[in-house]
Amino acid sequence: MRASRGLGLQMVKDLVKQNERPKKIIATARNPATAEELQEITRSFTGVHIITLDVVSESSIHSASEEVASIVGKEGLNCLINNAAINISTDLKTVTVEAMMKTFESNAVAPLMVTKAFLPHLQAAAGQNTGMGVHRAAVINVSSILGSIQLNWGDGAQFKSYAYRTSKSALNMITRCLATDLEAEGILCLALHPGWVRTDMGGPQAPLTPEESISSLLSVISSLTEKEHGGYMDYSGNKLPW
Amino acid sequence: MRASRGLGLQMVKDLVKQNERPKKIIATARNPATAEELQEITRSFTGVHIITLDVVSESSIHSASEEVASIVGKEGLNCLINNAAINISTDLKTVTVEAMMKTFESNAVAPLMVTKAFLPHLQAAAGQNTGMGVHRAAVINVSSILGSIQLNWGDGAQFKSYAYRTSKSALNMITRCLATDLEAEGILCLALHPGWVRTDMGGPQAPLTPEESISSLLSVISSLTEKEHGGYMDYSGNKLPW
Repeated sequence: MRASRGLGLQMVKDLVKQNERPKKIIATARNPATAEELQEITRSFTGVHIITLDVVSESSIHSASEEVASIVGKEGLNCLINNAAINISTDLKTVTVEAMMKTFESNAVAPLMVTKAFLPHLQAAAGQNTGMGVHRAAVINVSSILGSIQLNWGDGAQFKSYAYRTSKSALNMITRCLATDLEAEGILCLALHPGWVRTDMGGPQAPLTPEESISSLLSVISSLTEKEHGGYMDYSGNKLPW
Repeated sequence: MRASRGLGLQMVKDLVKQNERPKKIIATARNPATAEELQEITRSFTGVHIITLDVVSESSIHSASEEVASIVGKEGLNCLINNAAINISTDLKTVTVEAMMKTFESNAVAPLMVTKAFLPHLQAAAGQNTGMGVHRAAVINVSSILGSIQLNWGDGAQFKSYAYRTSKSALNMITRCLATDLEAEGILCLALHPGWVRTDMGGPQAPLTPEESISSLLSVISSLTEKEHGGYMDYSGNKLPW
């Protein structure tokens, strides 16, 4: 997961304190040197690895995948969380080709390319277990309720952003494509809405704290089974309409 | 509509022969000089205008919008059909950043930008009537059943194309955003699946002829009301799940 700030950072903070925590946590950052909070966690807790990843750079994805291989070895990767995302304000008047393309690249294409590159590590983990869930192998794409085409109507349409909404609908389709492609290998794929959270992206009026969102999200993620495979849920485990 | 070949060309062929045909039909082509079938139609039928439009060029969209203004005058534009699209074969192994971006640009961003640029012409037409439908003003985005995230499962997941599917889900979201933004002005917006048709894109195994698809599509388009606004339908008028 991208963990230099926002929800990714909160997720690492929560994970290291859990009783049944993952043995290895790999946190990514575009620039680990400036991710000070994250650096501090690695000094206090063992098993947290920070690696460099810029999700819109193919060479960076490739290097990160090699680093992950050296960290996880033949045990592989049990859970990939694609949570890096950008939001450019774009209503009908202000939307531009550039904003649409840039947001789509970061929020939809990048998670697909990271998943493709990390697939051998997920496959290695999937080969060592049965069933579906994070005990085996899972890809969690952090989507948004704003990507729900059906809910973008009436009161649900108040938040205007062509670029952000479109990128998250696209990510939902990518999640579904991955789910059908990776099902036979036992790799669970899911699109997850973290709620509207008081982060840099969510802004100060958001109703949820990062702690509340992540505590719910981690509980949902840890109890995933084949029933949730290919789905779209919120942080409380409620199913969302596409 | 883009009408140099495929479904757009068939639509012009059908429209000119209808009893209650539109007074003015504007067909677009990237290069009108080479759109020979279309040129032939303008020699046999009056009221068909061919204009140059490359939907991924902002300057071309701008010029086309000015040409449309000079053709429709203050009566405005009653119906914009965004049907230009590309399909690059992209399964999990072959999908690239470039294929994702290029398909998204053509199939999702371009219809948004064309609609934005042509909006004054649609508003001009909308100002002269009440209710919703092509008697007033409508934006028809030619989408695909392959853009349905829900139907991309089981048998519905056999056609593999990350780039095409994603671009059509994105177009569906754009249609829904436009529908909420343009509702107050009385401009109907709809995503329409033309069926799997024997065109250059659909290939020779497709079950529908262009004649069958377009005859159904035009019948659906001509009878649209506010009930269909913001929806996603196939060529027979059946509602599709997002």
